[in-house]
Amino acid sequence: MSALADMLSTIFERRYRGVREADRDNRSMEELAHDLLGNSGEISGGLVARQILDRYAALSQDEKRAFFEFVTHGLEISPQTVRDTLEAYEKKPSKASYRAFAAACEPGRQEFARRLNRVPGATGKLVDMRHDLLRLLKEHKNLEPLDVDFHHLFGSWFNRGFLVLRPINWDSSASILEKIIEYEAVHAIDSWDDLRRRLKPSDRRCFGFFHPSMSDDPLIFVEVALTRGVPNSVQGLLADEREAILEEDADTAVFYSISNCQAGLAGISFGNSLIKQVVSDLSRDLPNLKTFVTLSPIPGLNKWLGGSQISLLPRDDHKALAAHYLLEAKRPDGFPVDPVARFHLGNGAQIHAVHADADTSDNGMRQSNGVMVNYLYDLNQISQNHEKFAAEKEITASHDVRTLSATVKTSQGD
Amino acid sequence: MSALADMLSTIFERRYRGVREADRDNRSMEELAHDLLGNSGEISGGLVARQILDRYAALSQDEKRAFFEFVTHGLEISPQTVRDTLEAYEKKPSKASYRAFAAACEPGRQEFARRLNRVPGATGKLVDMRHDLLRLLKEHKNLEPLDVDFHHLFGSWFNRGFLVLRPINWDSSASILEKIIEYEAVHAIDSWDDLRRRLKPSDRRCFGFFHPSMSDDPLIFVEVALTRGVPNSVQGLLADEREAILEEDADTAVFYSISNCQAGLAGISFGNSLIKQVVSDLSRDLPNLKTFVTLSPIPGLNKWLGGSQISLLPRDDHKALAAHYLLEAKRPDGFPVDPVARFHLGNGAQIHAVHADADTSDNGMRQSNGVMVNYLYDLNQISQNHEKFAAEKEITASHDVRTLSATVKTSQGD
Amino acid sequence: MSALADMLSTIFERRYRGVREADRDNRSMEELAHDLLGNSGEISGGLVARQILDRYAALSQDEKRAFFEFVTHGLEISPQTVRDTLEAYEKKPSKASYRAFAAACEPGRQEFARRLNRVPGATGKLVDMRHDLLRLLKEHKNLEPLDVDFHHLFGSWFNRGFLVLRPINWDSSASILEKIIEYEAVHAIDSWDDLRRRLKPSDRRCFGFFHPSMSDDPLIFVEVALTRGVPNSVQGLLADEREAILEEDADTAVFYSISNCQAGLAGISFGNSLIKQVVSDLSRDLPNLKTFVTLSPIPGLNKWLGGSQISLLPRDDHKALAAHYLLEAKRPDGFPVDPVARFHLGNGAQIHAVHADADTSDNGMRQSNGVMVNYLYDLNQISQNHEKFAAEKEITASHDVRTLSATVKTSQGD
Amino acid sequence: MSALADMLSTIFERRYRGVREADRDNRSMEELAHDLLGNSGEISGGLVARQILDRYAALSQDEKRAFFEFVTHGLEISPQTVRDTLEAYEKKPSKASYRAFAAACEPGRQEFARRLNRVPGATGKLVDMRHDLLRLLKEHKNLEPLDVDFHHLFGSWFNRGFLVLRPINWDSSASILEKIIEYEAVHAIDSWDDLRRRLKPSDRRCFGFFHPSMSDDPLIFVEVALTRGVPNSVQGLLADEREAILEEDADTAVFYSISNCQAGLAGISFGNSLIKQVVSDLSRDLPNLKTFVTLSPIPGLNKWLGGSQISLLPRDDHKALAAHYLLEAKRPDGFPVDPVARFHLGNGAQIHAVHADADTSDNGMRQSNGVMVNYLYDLNQISQNHEKFAAEKEITASHDVRTLSATVKTSQGD
Repeated sequence: MSALADMLSTIFERRYRGVREADRDNRSMEELAHDLLGNSGEISGGLVARQILDRYAALSQDEKRAFFEFVTHGLEISPQTVRDTLEAYEKKPSKASYRAFAAACEPGRQEFARRLNRVPGATGKLVDMRHDLLRLLKEHKNLEPLDVDFHHLFGSWFNRGFLVLRPINWDSSASILEKIIEYEAVHAIDSWDDLRRRLKPSDRRCFGFFHPSMSDDPLIFVEVALTRGVPNSVQGLLADEREAILEEDADTAVFYSISNCQAGLAGISFGNSLIKQVVSDLSRDLPNLKTFVTLSPIPGLNKWLGGSQISLLPRDDHKALAAHYLLEAKRPDGFPVDPVARFHLGNGAQIHAVHADADTSDNGMRQSNGVMVNYLYDLNQISQNHEKFAAEKEITASHDVRTLSATVKTSQGD
Repeated sequence: MSALADMLSTIFERRYRGVREADRDNRSMEELAHDLLGNSGEISGGLVARQILDRYAALSQDEKRAFFEFVTHGLEISPQTVRDTLEAYEKKPSKASYRAFAAACEPGRQEFARRLNRVPGATGKLVDMRHDLLRLLKEHKNLEPLDVDFHHLFGSWFNRGFLVLRPINWDSSASILEKIIEYEAVHAIDSWDDLRRRLKPSDRRCFGFFHPSMSDDPLIFVEVALTRGVPNSVQGLLADEREAILEEDADTAVFYSISNCQAGLAGISFGNSLIKQVVSDLSRDLPNLKTFVTLSPIPGLNKWLGGSQISLLPRDDHKALAAHYLLEAKRPDGFPVDPVARFHLGNGAQIHAVHADADTSDNGMRQSNGVMVNYLYDLNQISQNHEKFAAEKEITASHDVRTLSATVKTSQGD
Repeated sequence: MSALADMLSTIFERRYRGVREADRDNRSMEELAHDLLGNSGEISGGLVARQILDRYAALSQDEKRAFFEFVTHGLEISPQTVRDTLEAYEKKPSKASYRAFAAACEPGRQEFARRLNRVPGATGKLVDMRHDLLRLLKEHKNLEPLDVDFHHLFGSWFNRGFLVLRPINWDSSASILEKIIEYEAVHAIDSWDDLRRRLKPSDRRCFGFFHPSMSDDPLIFVEVALTRGVPNSVQGLLADEREAILEEDADTAVFYSISNCQAGLAGISFGNSLIKQVVSDLSRDLPNLKTFVTLSPIPGLNKWLGGSQISLLPRDDHKALAAHYLLEAKRPDGFPVDPVARFHLGNGAQIHAVHADADTSDNGMRQSNGVMVNYLYDLNQISQNHEKFAAEKEITASHDVRTLSATVKTSQGD
Repeated sequence: MSALADMLSTIFERRYRGVREADRDNRSMEELAHDLLGNSGEISGGLVARQILDRYAALSQDEKRAFFEFVTHGLEISPQTVRDTLEAYEKKPSKASYRAFAAACEPGRQEFARRLNRVPGATGKLVDMRHDLLRLLKEHKNLEPLDVDFHHLFGSWFNRGFLVLRPINWDSSASILEKIIEYEAVHAIDSWDDLRRRLKPSDRRCFGFFHPSMSDDPLIFVEVALTRGVPNSVQGLLADEREAILEEDADTAVFYSISNCQAGLAGISFGNSLIKQVVSDLSRDLPNLKTFVTLSPIPGLNKWLGGSQISLLPRDDHKALAAHYLLEAKRPDGFPVDPVARFHLGNGAQIHAVHADADTSDNGMRQSNGVMVNYLYDLNQISQNHEKFAAEKEITASHDVRTLSATVKTSQGD
């Protein structure tokens, strides 16, 4: 039975522990950083790294900026060394010459982050560090290279193969659940009672991706409703007084909210893997499920309408306008204007239906006059939908949505 | 209670699954590799990666070599692009210019490995792939750059912060235990009964480092005996008929065997972290433990003696010779000749005692006339021992060992 | 790693599942009960038992009473059979004769409950059933024998050896935590934020006893504060704005709240085992802890004062009065009047100190003018304290408390 | 994540710990027993109970017998008290009178066992104690009442609702697996390699019932082979060199071995629950499985043939004889002679097919000339098969088996 004990030892070990008073020293951050990158890293590196992390946590905004300045510029590559080692490698490719070149190309910043990461529990702190950096980046463009390094490392560390899909439910720990409340980005969760309504009923599911080194903190999660038929209103879906159905009676799974949790992982995308994995797992566990759809907002609709040429039309046919927008409103690069549409169509989903009065919240009215859209995930079609969309920018949509869109005539059409 | 369920879903998901017959296609490995690196990677990459991994597993040695040739040379950097992007970055450092430079420096080989690794369970397969590569390397030096890339990636993936220390004992799963039998490199385990004698008694412990993506397969493990006093014979320690003592009666923990498990992780070192972590954990759990020592072989002794100038001496005083060898036999770079000595002294341990007739096995007699050595791990001294050794090549040893060594006079001394 | 899988299979299996519509039949509860006790119990008993449990859950109070009437009287022993089998057993003791006697003595009620309990998840439902029964008992004394049977069975099922001590903390599941909020009987928990303050800080602990068949539902739990020195105020202990100390800096563990959770387990006592186990576990994990005390209410003080002969005294010396009450106020059987005192003294604790202004809540003022008491658990003294108290009704108390008590003179003393 | 921690705390706590040297005393077993049953049981009972259990483990056979004598006769009921309390209860049924009667009917033996069981880990020791008792019983009939008490208590403690079904596989702990090797009663497991062949292939399963207080020790387990079609040879099923099929390709699950593990639980039956549960779980997990059969020995065939009137027939038609035996050979009570047939038919299975040369081992030839039988578990039929068998002793069998049996003519038939 000790696999349990084993995992437990893991869990305790993974928690970050700060440096005890007695073990702290007075060196500057720069000195500590150079020490960490130096020879003694193997033995006493843990202590040095934890001092840097502890110290960092207490820095002011300005001090953080100064720290990032140092890391960005103080641990920069040497162009001449890159050139020299490249030449040597070209002349005589070997383990030694390639290793020298690879070392020369990689700034000390990356090794610095990797050595900080040796400390149990440090991964989450590095993710937060990048979050700080991203906030500073707007005004301090010179720090951009450091962000590129973070992005590169995180892409490797948060590789899909290292992530773990876990159900999140009313039996999950309070420490995870309070993060769900905090992170829910689409339809806010007001209270623990509200959370219980999202997680506990027999017709609700939630799944998240976790990284083993951040086991209490989801990276992304999706909330799912099991329904009979495709729903046309998010308020209906989340109504307090609704009656739950039995899971085996559901024929449809509705992804009604997807939330990224870690601002420090911006640019590392998990969403499409998550949805595909959840579709696949739910199909297996609940064979009665036949349809997998989203109930998604159309965040860009009204903004786009404001600037569009659509003026001849009865503007109150919101559904038709939404269909038209989703199918026809394109960016200069030929992909849809709507970010949510780009995400789901890029994943290989197709536009299934649009619904009026589907999100009557203030936010829903403001962005799309209450219209919402179902994107359909059909596992048999995902690959070819994706190919067409990626290669030819072709959008797959149901006949109804196409028909509806065709009722809209733009002024250009005249 | 669903943390259990959560972890379980993890575990199932982590197992590698090959591609079903129906989903295989006829493209060449090169075509598959280019597809994997291409645009569609996000959606259908998993299927392509699994085809590559399945296909690789069935290759002959020659085909593997050809595959490595392709990866090494077909996914090489372009020196000109490196030079161009470097220049651009120097002129105007920005996110775009640095990203372009970083991309140019990194050969496609690395991204290729990262994309293979997106498949659940692929990490162990990539480690095995490097094992194959290492075998080919001796005769095919041109593949060396690929090995440098693997080493670089694995250094990042198997970062200490991602590893998990777990006890291995008679309650561990058979699938882990059969690997302990297979991997034990120092004192072979003959059978499951022998294994039980190493793991089950109250005065035995075993700990290993695991990576979350290879949760059934240890990376390295150490076997520990709890004793009263420092032992002077490994046969005594492992005797079939010995009586176990209660764990709380032990005052000494003896590390009598450390085995690396993954040939494909050559050059990524875990040993010193493992020992330090185990010393620290055992100290906390069993406060009666006061002494942490190894009982280590001296693999280089007789070989060195054969070539040494020590001729005037009674050659049969094996203990004195061993002490002398450990303290005085140096490589050109000033570090000890003995590899085990280099490992433990480099970790900050010190030479504590040498014992005659300590390993009377054929192997023990052959390599060191049966002499063994205890290296002492004193947590309070580790850091400074390490510093002295690393910086000044100074070896810390007990007074007894120094005295013993001094009794040996070399012919040069005359 | 399959111990996890194993445990998981357990957990799913343990949840009670009602009977599907299609499998229900129209028999009366009495018919179902006779069927359950009949021969076919082995095969189709599960279905019958689940029908009874489902049906029971939907009964009105009157119907429940009628159901209990049936079980009590319809499944009664036959006195004549008892007499006959007893005689046969006396004449010729054997397996057969004793078995017959044992069967005759045991009413069908017990086997009925055991067969209901064969259904996974039924144990908690039977506990709730007894809760219903206890409520009816006051007005329906004729049901008392059934309660004696429940008490007998539960004593066997909830035997200390079957219970599991588990920490309850902020990593526990929401489904357990919401029960802590519900069950806390001593110092009410207002909200999830309040709960977090009780469980999450480094100097707080909570432990509960669980039965494996009711793994989401604690039987009893105790809340513990780790402090420096013995505290003298519960409001101080629970203050919102207090600063947590490090666990290793604490020298004292304070049991400030013990709550029984299952009304249906009335008369089955777990409290003393729980406290002793927690004292023992905390001693091992946190060796700096030297003192284990409660901070307990004195619920009977003011009620007793109202009827006492203590009139000559300055009644406002609440501490002295409390000490006096705890030491001198006795029931006719010679044991203390105060129920909390009886509990802790019966467990082998001793009266350590009394504090004025220790519970300034309305309830604290009402019952004891704000005075509270520390009972001290000294593992070395528990056994002999208990013996003296149980056999000779002798109360062990500190010198200070004795001195304080002695300052009180009763009118009888004049 | 602390559900893991919680469960872990459980597991450690559950292990039995003997009494330390210093805490032992010199009282006799009888004195200890009376102390355990006395007042102080609540507080110091654990220590006393552990002394009794430690002491018991060291007793000789004769001393054990003497101990059982004491428990059986020294803790006997008082017939007069039974009569008196019965009369009082009849006159005035109340909580007090019924409680007195119930107490009088129950010998101290039962409370003695319950108090021993309060010690963590004691349950398994009590099961072993009954095993000792059962061995003594043949020659010491006077101990029979004690066995009746054990049987009664174990029936309550090992109630189906308390048991846990767990898969046993190559990921199970070595401590459980070595028990599978030890307990396998039908087709012996020779070695760990043999065990691996039974557990690891994709087309093998094993499941056991466990009691939470004996979590390392199965109560009963069943080995399952997943096959295409119903197998007709156990040697074929277990052949070393056979090729495993994919689990999703199997259409049939074969229960080829069921082993009871605890001799001390004789008379407490788990087998039918186990098979039904496994059929139900496998159906859910592997929807391609359509047929659930055993491949069972016919242990009584040759013995019965020896004494039968079947002489006119070609005795070498072993299949027909086996069919005839299974359908027609009855005990005086009308149930089948064959114990395995009684077990499966009693569970609601039906006779599906008989096979010649199905078990060509020495044992198989000796008991049934190599013939084996498939009993079919059809979840839709189990209930009514069971009813017919239990009430009317009617055996359900396939048409083929009936036809085959009809070819046999007994001499009586002439």
